[in-house]
Amino acid sequence: MKTHRIAVVAGDGIGLEVMPEGLRALEAAASRFGIGLQFDHFDFACWPYYERHGQMLPDDWKEQIGSHDAIYFGAVGWPEKIPDHISLWGSLLRFRREFDQYVNLRPARLLPGMSAPLRRRDGTPYAPGEIDMWIVRENTEGEYSSVGGRMFEGSEREIVLQETVMSRHGVDRVLRFAFELAQSRPKQHLTSATKSNGIAITMPYWDERVAAMARQYPGVHVDQFHIDILCAHFVQRPDCFDVVVASNLFGDILSDLGPACTGTIGVAPSANLNPERRHPSLFEPVHGSAPDIAGRGIANPIGQIWCGAMMLDFLGHRKAHDALLQAIETVLASGGDAPRTPDLGGRASTADLGRAIAEVV
Amino acid sequence: MKTHRIAVVAGDGIGLEVMPEGLRALEAAASRFGIGLQFDHFDFACWPYYERHGQMLPDDWKEQIGSHDAIYFGAVGWPEKIPDHISLWGSLLRFRREFDQYVNLRPARLLPGMSAPLRRRDGTPYAPGEIDMWIVRENTEGEYSSVGGRMFEGSEREIVLQETVMSRHGVDRVLRFAFELAQSRPKQHLTSATKSNGIAITMPYWDERVAAMARQYPGVHVDQFHIDILCAHFVQRPDCFDVVVASNLFGDILSDLGPACTGTIGVAPSANLNPERRHPSLFEPVHGSAPDIAGRGIANPIGQIWCGAMMLDFLGHRKAHDALLQAIETVLASGGDAPRTPDLGGRASTADLGRAIAEVV
Ligand SMILES: CC(C)[C@H](C(=O)O)[C@@H](O)C(=O)O
Ligand SMILES: CC(C)[C@H](C(=O)O)[C@@H](O)C(=O)O
Repeated sequence: MKTHRIAVVAGDGIGLEVMPEGLRALEAAASRFGIGLQFDHFDFACWPYYERHGQMLPDDWKEQIGSHDAIYFGAVGWPEKIPDHISLWGSLLRFRREFDQYVNLRPARLLPGMSAPLRRRDGTPYAPGEIDMWIVRENTEGEYSSVGGRMFEGSEREIVLQETVMSRHGVDRVLRFAFELAQSRPKQHLTSATKSNGIAITMPYWDERVAAMARQYPGVHVDQFHIDILCAHFVQRPDCFDVVVASNLFGDILSDLGPACTGTIGVAPSANLNPERRHPSLFEPVHGSAPDIAGRGIANPIGQIWCGAMMLDFLGHRKAHDALLQAIETVLASGGDAPRTPDLGGRASTADLGRAIAEVV
Repeated sequence: MKTHRIAVVAGDGIGLEVMPEGLRALEAAASRFGIGLQFDHFDFACWPYYERHGQMLPDDWKEQIGSHDAIYFGAVGWPEKIPDHISLWGSLLRFRREFDQYVNLRPARLLPGMSAPLRRRDGTPYAPGEIDMWIVRENTEGEYSSVGGRMFEGSEREIVLQETVMSRHGVDRVLRFAFELAQSRPKQHLTSATKSNGIAITMPYWDERVAAMARQYPGVHVDQFHIDILCAHFVQRPDCFDVVVASNLFGDILSDLGPACTGTIGVAPSANLNPERRHPSLFEPVHGSAPDIAGRGIANPIGQIWCGAMMLDFLGHRKAHDALLQAIETVLASGGDAPRTPDLGGRASTADLGRAIAEVV
C-alpha cells in the first residue's frame, strides 16, 4: 500500500478548529478503504508564526513541503494583527503561484438540508442536486498581478496602475482543464465568463482562446456571458450551469456567489491543483479564518471535510471521495437530533458535527 | 417656464421599442407638473448608422448633443453585425468618458408585484421596499482602460497586458458623491466594494481613499467587503445595504447582481452623471438591445420609463420623479387585468404597458 504524504497546515482562526475534524474524517475514510495517509503538521502560514519570525513562511518552505503529495490547508488571515494582503501574498498566494497550482476548482452544489436562499420564478425551491456546477478558476495570473505602482504619491495628481497579465500558456492550460472536465460530465456544457465589451484588451483575448480551444472539443456545448449578467444568471437560473471557466478575479467572484446561491458558502471546498503533479496541490475550504467566531468551537467543519474528499479524489481514490461526500449529505439530510452547528441553525460544536460525519463514513 | 432640451438616442434593438413609451411617460409627467421638455432625436449610436458611415458617431457629435441638458438613451449593440467592444467603445463608453459622466448611479429596489428570486434564511420573502439600495459606480477609469497591448502575437509566448488606472482625482470625486448620497439618506450607511487582499496595488489604494474620505463624513457608517463575499452578501442579506460604492468593474457587476436579486434586472434604470453639469448626463436602462426579442413589440418599457424619472429628478423635478415611480409601482401592484409584458408573466405589448403607466402618472 502506497502511503500518501500530506502536509497539514491549519493556519489561523477557525482553521485550527476545523482541521482536527477534517483529519478525523480522512482517517475514517482511509481505514474504510485501506488508504495509507501520513500527516505531517506545519506551524507556518499563520499570525503566531509571523509574530515570531517576521514572515509568513520559513525560507526553506519549498523543501519542507514541496515533495508532499498534497497540502491540506485550513485558513489564513488575522486582519487585526496583520493586513490580509501581507498574510495572503506571503502564504496562500505564494503556494498557488510557486507550486503552479494553476487550476482552482470549486463546486457549487445544492446539498440536502441546507437552507438555500434562491427560488424559481414561480416561487418553488430547487431540489438538492438540481444546482450542481463546477467553477474552474485560473489561479496564477490575470488580475492578481504584482506588476504596477504609484506615481505622484501623496499629491493631487496621484495615480496608481496595476497590470492584468494574461499569457497564452496560462490561459490555454486552464481552458484545457475546463474543457476536459466538461467533456467528462453528462451535460458537456461549458460556460466562459468574460467582459470583453468593457475590459477591451485582455478579455477579448480570453474569448479568442476559448473559441480556439472549443474547436478541439466539438462535443462540448460552449456559451459565454459577460461577468455582470453571468452573476445575474447565477441568481436567476443557477440550474443552467455545468462547468464555468473564468479568469482569476471572475473565478474568485463566481466561486463565492455560486455557493452563496446554494446556501453552502460556509461549507464549500476548493482545490488548488497542479494537474501535472509536478508540485503538491492544495486543498482548502472557501471560508476564511473567521476571527468573529474563532476560539469558540462552533465553526462548521464540513468545508474542511469536503476538501479532504476532493484531496482523496485527486490522489486517485474516487470511492473514498464519494463516501465522504455521502457521509456529509447523510448527516445534513437527517433531521431530529443530528448535530448542527449554529450556522446550520443548531447548537452543536465543531467536534459534534465532525464526529457525526466520521461515524457514517 | 424653462424648457429642458433632451437629446434622444434610441440606439438599437429594443431601444427603438421602449423609447416611445419612455417619451410618452415623460410627456405625461411634464404636462402634469408643468415642465417644459423639448426632445431632439438623433439617429447615431446604432448599427444602421455604423453600416452607412463606418463609425458609430458623427465627427461632430459633441457639438450636436453637447449643449443639451440631458441625453435620454435606449440601448446600443448588435453583436451579430458588429462586435460589442466596437459599438460600445464607439458610443456609450465615449459618452461616459468624454462627457465626464463619472458617476454611474443605479438603484436596486424591491418593487411590488415583481417575483424576486430571494428568500430569507427562514424561507420567507422580502417585502417591497425592504431591499432598497443605490449602487454608485465609478464610470470613467479603473479596470475599463484602453492602455495595454499584446506581445509575441500568434506564438506560444503570446502575452496580453491591460492596465487598471486609478487616480486620486477619479477616485475621490466618486467617493465624495457616494458619501454625500449616504449622508442624505436615513440609514447613512456606505459600503465600499474592494478586493485589496488579491488586487494588491490598486485596491489597497481605493481602501486608503475611502478611509481618508470617511474622516470627512463622521456621521456616515462605513464598512467594506471584498467583492467576492460582497456578492455573496447581496444574495444572503440584501436588506443590509444602503449606498454601495465601487470601482468601474465592481460597480458593473454589483449593479446587475443587485437588480437580479430584486427580480428587476429587466426594468432597472441607470444614470450616468456629470454632477457638476459641465456636460450632459445620460440616462439609460440597464438592459441592452436584446436582439433575441427585438422587433416583436414585447420588451418591457419600465427601465426606460424609470430612467426618465431619474432624468427628471436630476433636472430638478423631484415630484415628477416620484410620480413616475409611483405610476410604475401602481401598475405593477395592480393584479387582474393590468397589462404585463411576457417577462412579467403576461401577454401585453410594450405599448400596452407603457400606456397603462402613462395613464396613471
Ligand atoms: C455594455 C457594457 C460596456 C456596459 C458596462 O460594462 O459598463 C454595461 O454592462 C453597463 O453596465 O452599462
Ligand atoms: C483570500 C483571497 C486572496 C482569496 C482570493 O481572492 O483568491 C480568497 O478569496 C479565495 O477565493 O481563495
